[in-house]
Amino acid sequence: MARGRFITLEGLDGAGKSTHLAFIRDWLAERRIETVFTREPGGTPLGEKLRELLLDVDTEATLDTETLLMFAGRMEHIARVIEPALAAGRWLVSDRFTDATFAYQGGGRGVAAERIRVLEDWVQQGLQPDLTLLLDVPLSVSQARMAASRTLDRFEQEAADFHERVRAAYLARAAAEPARFAVIDASRDIASIQRDIATHLAALKERA
Amino acid sequence: MARGRFITLEGLDGAGKSTHLAFIRDWLAERRIETVFTREPGGTPLGEKLRELLLDVDTEATLDTETLLMFAGRMEHIARVIEPALAAGRWLVSDRFTDATFAYQGGGRGVAAERIRVLEDWVQQGLQPDLTLLLDVPLSVSQARMAASRTLDRFEQEAADFHERVRAAYLARAAAEPARFAVIDASRDIASIQRDIATHLAALKERA
Repeated sequence: MARGRFITLEGLDGAGKSTHLAFIRDWLAERRIETVFTREPGGTPLGEKLRELLLDVDTEATLDTETLLMFAGRMEHIARVIEPALAAGRWLVSDRFTDATFAYQGGGRGVAAERIRVLEDWVQQGLQPDLTLLLDVPLSVSQARMAASRTLDRFEQEAADFHERVRAAYLARAAAEPARFAVIDASRDIASIQRDIATHLAALKERA
Repeated sequence: MARGRFITLEGLDGAGKSTHLAFIRDWLAERRIETVFTREPGGTPLGEKLRELLLDVDTEATLDTETLLMFAGRMEHIARVIEPALAAGRWLVSDRFTDATFAYQGGGRGVAAERIRVLEDWVQQGLQPDLTLLLDVPLSVSQARMAASRTLDRFEQEAADFHERVRAAYLARAAAEPARFAVIDASRDIASIQRDIATHLAALKERA
């Protein structure tokens, strides 16, 4: 049996992932492609418990520990969900994957990319998505909205800086792996975005 | 302030760790050395939750995931307990540490030592115990006891094989790092064992 395809969807909150996931679901269903939809962090019973643990303020983990827990959940996700689906010929679509760790724990919070790469190799052992759709929203758009009426307070400014670092880390990953990434300008109208997504899905479907 | 000393106690269940931990506690208290006693897996609130998660059959993790979770708990243990104690000049005694991962997940269950070493480097970044007391019980003793009256059943034979692999992995670690390890024949009488332990503690105390 032909191996399935592995697609990941990445981007900041508010980039429109939910809307476009629904579009991807419809596109694949129309072509009668058997598909599994999943998400990170989470995706398995153990992964969901780790997700809860990461959100529990009473057990707030250090940044390095958080990064290890992310990869522990990912290891389980790959072994229990992703690899079995791909081996069975299904397409697997994950709402976030390792690029999010490079973006959030790395770019956003400062874990060295080299350290993240060590865990990526340990856990994935060469597994990579066949296609990563990065929904990219220019920072100028969201910043302009926030700044339109008044000066940013300290918290908003920090949030904007964080947002900018996460976005930059995503774009750096995309630049380093152009064959895997499709960077999609998600500030445009929905029809234009979905035309782009459909083009990338069709190309993936035709790929040998 | 002088940095404290980091001691780990290793060995199979039944090797007498609890008895000898109490002896170490008394020995250090008599010399008015401020000491922190801790354990793995566990040692922090997050580590204890991970310990529970590892024991929960409903969320049984793959072996690789288990290994990552062990190191996530260790990362937290180092950051929150071990490093602060050592920096404050206290001696820290841990009931098991990384050698147990090499012995149980590695030797016992088959994770490649090279893969464990990658996580050891990631988490410890050079930190190693100053002294590791390995309480070693010859397998012949426990096997002779089990086999005395009758033939081993399949489960007992598997347990014996597992025990042998764990012990061999502990001894291999000790052989590779003779300056750090003290291998103590724990099949002897308690007085002899504790005389050896006291000799190693005294040498550690005198070390510059």
